Amino acid sequence: MDILFKNVTVLTMESENDVFYDSFVGILDGKICYVGENRPQSTIKREIDGKNKVLMPSLINCHTHSPMSLLRGYSNDVKLQKWLFEDIFPAERKIDNNMAFVGALLSIAEMVASGTASMSDMYLGLPHIAEAVEQAGMKANLSNGIIHFGEEKCDFKASKEYRETIAVVKEYHLKNHPLIKADASIHGEYTSAPDTWLQVMEFAKEYSLRMHIHLSETKVEFEQCKERHKGLTPTQIFDRYRLFELPVFAAHGVYLDDRDIEILSKNKVTVVHNPISNLKLASGVSPVFRMVQNGINITLGTDGMASNNSNDLFEEIKMACLLQKAICDDPTAITAFEALEMATKNGAIAQGRERECGVIKEGFDADLIMIDFDNERLTPSYDPFSTIAYSATGQDVVLTMCKGKILYENGNFNTLDIEKVLFEVRNAKEKLKK
Amino acid sequence: MDILFKNVTVLTMESENDVFYDSFVGILDGKICYVGENRPQSTIKREIDGKNKVLMPSLINCHTHSPMSLLRGYSNDVKLQKWLFEDIFPAERKIDNNMAFVGALLSIAEMVASGTASMSDMYLGLPHIAEAVEQAGMKANLSNGIIHFGEEKCDFKASKEYRETIAVVKEYHLKNHPLIKADASIHGEYTSAPDTWLQVMEFAKEYSLRMHIHLSETKVEFEQCKERHKGLTPTQIFDRYRLFELPVFAAHGVYLDDRDIEILSKNKVTVVHNPISNLKLASGVSPVFRMVQNGINITLGTDGMASNNSNDLFEEIKMACLLQKAICDDPTAITAFEALEMATKNGAIAQGRERECGVIKEGFDADLIMIDFDNERLTPSYDPFSTIAYSATGQDVVLTMCKGKILYENGNFNTLDIEKVLFEVRNAKEKLKK
Repeated sequence: MDILFKNVTVLTMESENDVFYDSFVGILDGKICYVGENRPQSTIKREIDGKNKVLMPSLINCHTHSPMSLLRGYSNDVKLQKWLFEDIFPAERKIDNNMAFVGALLSIAEMVASGTASMSDMYLGLPHIAEAVEQAGMKANLSNGIIHFGEEKCDFKASKEYRETIAVVKEYHLKNHPLIKADASIHGEYTSAPDTWLQVMEFAKEYSLRMHIHLSETKVEFEQCKERHKGLTPTQIFDRYRLFELPVFAAHGVYLDDRDIEILSKNKVTVVHNPISNLKLASGVSPVFRMVQNGINITLGTDGMASNNSNDLFEEIKMACLLQKAICDDPTAITAFEALEMATKNGAIAQGRERECGVIKEGFDADLIMIDFDNERLTPSYDPFSTIAYSATGQDVVLTMCKGKILYENGNFNTLDIEKVLFEVRNAKEKLKK
Repeated sequence: MDILFKNVTVLTMESENDVFYDSFVGILDGKICYVGENRPQSTIKREIDGKNKVLMPSLINCHTHSPMSLLRGYSNDVKLQKWLFEDIFPAERKIDNNMAFVGALLSIAEMVASGTASMSDMYLGLPHIAEAVEQAGMKANLSNGIIHFGEEKCDFKASKEYRETIAVVKEYHLKNHPLIKADASIHGEYTSAPDTWLQVMEFAKEYSLRMHIHLSETKVEFEQCKERHKGLTPTQIFDRYRLFELPVFAAHGVYLDDRDIEILSKNKVTVVHNPISNLKLASGVSPVFRMVQNGINITLGTDGMASNNSNDLFEEIKMACLLQKAICDDPTAITAFEALEMATKNGAIAQGRERECGVIKEGFDADLIMIDFDNERLTPSYDPFSTIAYSATGQDVVLTMCKGKILYENGNFNTLDIEKVLFEVRNAKEKLKK
């Protein structure tokens, strides 16, 4: 055995009752080879003591734009139009390939240090983001959402988005890379027309890719879509074009009517809930509880750092619980355990990794985090799920492991030179400043 | 000079433009004796380097029930009636004086480590909470809200609440204790009758005390009050009894009509916003932006740990910004700077300490925190206010000082034996378990 965790509380996340106290988890060749209350008989290279600590699957951030960490706090407390057209878009045009790499590394550092070991990313500079992911040793589903405005017919295969995506498909996805998958991506209903969608869908089918989209994030998007498409909502127009016959995960889903929820449920579309970004941009609160009751797979995302401004998924976990209670006028809506499912095994489903990670189970990848409960923030603990969902933050994570490799332990990065990353981020900032 | 901070960014919180970069702050005899860009000429006992760090006033938690940290996570995701009557009230009956002391110490440890150096507390066991505050060296306004149900006429001076409060008045308040003040307190409209209120008001006048109350937290409270009091809301019935002629700070204020807001504004009542507790108990979202527009002083509180479950006031700062944007459909509602004012100088007004602390200013108490920006969470920073409000957590605080005394520095407590506190908390937990 390469590593044996001992004396540890284990939340497998398979079910709420599946908690092992004072137990053992063994790792061999990147996989979980043992979970149990008795010490396994085996030679062990390294033992890690988990007294007063909790082991659970590492978190999955299902919607982000990782290089945007360079624009964290670049523009705040302003109207959406100003935010997007006067501040964010002009700044984004300055982000070159090297900056995309540095920005991705910054987000990845923050994720890894706060317990996230897999992300679904959508941004320009994809091959450079892939390099950052590979260097850090985390997992990622990478996409670059096609945006095509204007009268001219879209030639998807001539677009930068296609060129970057196909590069990652060939370099990683088709080679069954251990960490990196490519996703196809339509940025959203409001940023392209049906002829673009059909081309991207064709591409997704050709390479058996999943589809990462933005869906019904704002009221303006929802209402204008109905004007553009004879009363059909973004969900309904995509359904009309049979987008949901592909495996789709859709970010936001704030504005959804009953018919939309029925479509998403019937087609097993995953909805990625981004509660903090939705509040910060005054978009609203997604009807997550209603979707859960309709059997929709809900996962969590931070969205980009210009509208959050933290990559700590524990904040989204807490907000996923709290906001639904308030909008449903019901403190039982979305329990701690349900929110933790969203951040782990539901995310694995969205990424097409449900046979690979998302739970602690023999034969699954050793994608794990350990949380220290021995401090003033997390003591006393009557129930580990509620302690994690309501009291913990990413800074309580003391170990993050991906495929059996320890990426972060007790404040130290094992795969990243954080001082170098911060130095390069500060250089990039000087170029981005207004 | 006892201490000189150097190379530091200083947010005085006097105004949004009052930011000193690469500057100096000097401390002598517990007070701020220098703020400026040039190095002061003086003998200096200790220099603290503030490179890549930000100095600001320490935070003020204006509504909490500190011993309830023992019940952190005791009951979650259940209906309010079950939460209160089946879980919390029976558990609270087991909290004796020693447990109140230990629970207060636990909350205080969490506060101090996350940048809060003053609290307004309301709970039983007041003299024991005062001991914990004194031992830790933080500031507190302490109260014990009178609850009197039933037909029998209330004899306030025979109540435990009075006995505990008068003890703190005499032992600390009247002696002008450097850290501790006593407040009078009516727990809320729904937990006592007007004859009780009049007695507590008389007591407050006798000793010139401020008044800490719960006000309009839930819809049930709001509606039932109107039934009890001929259509008058909690704010209106208290106004009828002239409560607001005293200096009052009122926790929650979730359900307020236009007339209520007019009354609170006219009488200069402070409203303590507890955004996370209000979400967790499905109470709703306070109309904070509307109150700010009406000139009401808004401060922040965590409420008790059974309904939060974190004493980190940075979470309330972020939520105060985010929730108002969403409910007002306006991303400009409540800026980062405004939320930080709520957590500092507005809190000092609520506590009657506005000539003593809440801003960084020569002659004021050295109640300060230093936040480290040199990490993956807070880099890059384009604006220190937005970095603190949207990206920082209490765990980014590297130094907390109260009246010139360093209570917490780089992960270490200077006034508390945290291992002993956690040991005693675990013992208390065993007694409280269902």
